[in-house]
Amino acid sequence: MNDIEELLAANAEYYRAFNSRDFAAMSRIWADNHVSCIHPGWPALMGRDAVIASYRGILTNPLQERLECSDALAILSGNEGRVICVETVNGMALAVANWFKREGQAWRMIHHQATAIATPLQKLAEPSKRLN
Amino acid sequence: MNDIEELLAANAEYYRAFNSRDFAAMSRIWADNHVSCIHPGWPALMGRDAVIASYRGILTNPLQERLECSDALAILSGNEGRVICVETVNGMALAVANWFKREGQAWRMIHHQATAIATPLQKLAEPSKRLN
Repeated sequence: MNDIEELLAANAEYYRAFNSRDFAAMSRIWADNHVSCIHPGWPALMGRDAVIASYRGILTNPLQERLECSDALAILSGNEGRVICVETVNGMALAVANWFKREGQAWRMIHHQATAIATPLQKLAEPSKRLN
Repeated sequence: MNDIEELLAANAEYYRAFNSRDFAAMSRIWADNHVSCIHPGWPALMGRDAVIASYRGILTNPLQERLECSDALAILSGNEGRVICVETVNGMALAVANWFKREGQAWRMIHHQATAIATPLQKLAEPSKRLN
């Protein structure tokens, strides 16, 4: 795999760990230092302890929906890189940046941020059209 | 200034340019390549042309409110760095990550993302208390 493929694979592994509620894998994905995370609606979490604690809560929450990742685009910058993608959860779309840092052979996450995409009024109206 | 101070100064310059509607300065702040931007509610913008066009619209919008930046924390990683901060606009708070890359003597922006922070019900109720 080249660097871009490795970045996209690391991003895919994040969603695999999330959706299979694999907390050990999620813990490995996150780097040891200089991490931050902004979940939708949350204040920023700074540092590994706060970030990992948030995932422990999310991955053990029986009401947590699956995240579908699509439209992933990787941007490489030396030993760091980001994947810009779309998360779909329960029919809602979020614009996401996942940042990784190369550590040895692995790409480990240093920042995750998901921002809800406002739904156009036209799309909100679509379900009612289907009733006709 | 040390690197952290330079990063915080670059972040402050972003908000100065924004609030003074200084499009030329905003254009200088953004790097030439590998930029991305996620405004609240928007899909991700990829590439300098799309990002700069968005700021042209925002900075010439007479209804655009001022952004107040607070709680800025810088995290340095070699020639890149991020500032995690809070934007307050019209009483609403957003959790923000601003990413910069060193280019010569300058720190130039490579990614901006702002995510609305959900307001606790208790805070929503506060204004009515003031009426008593």
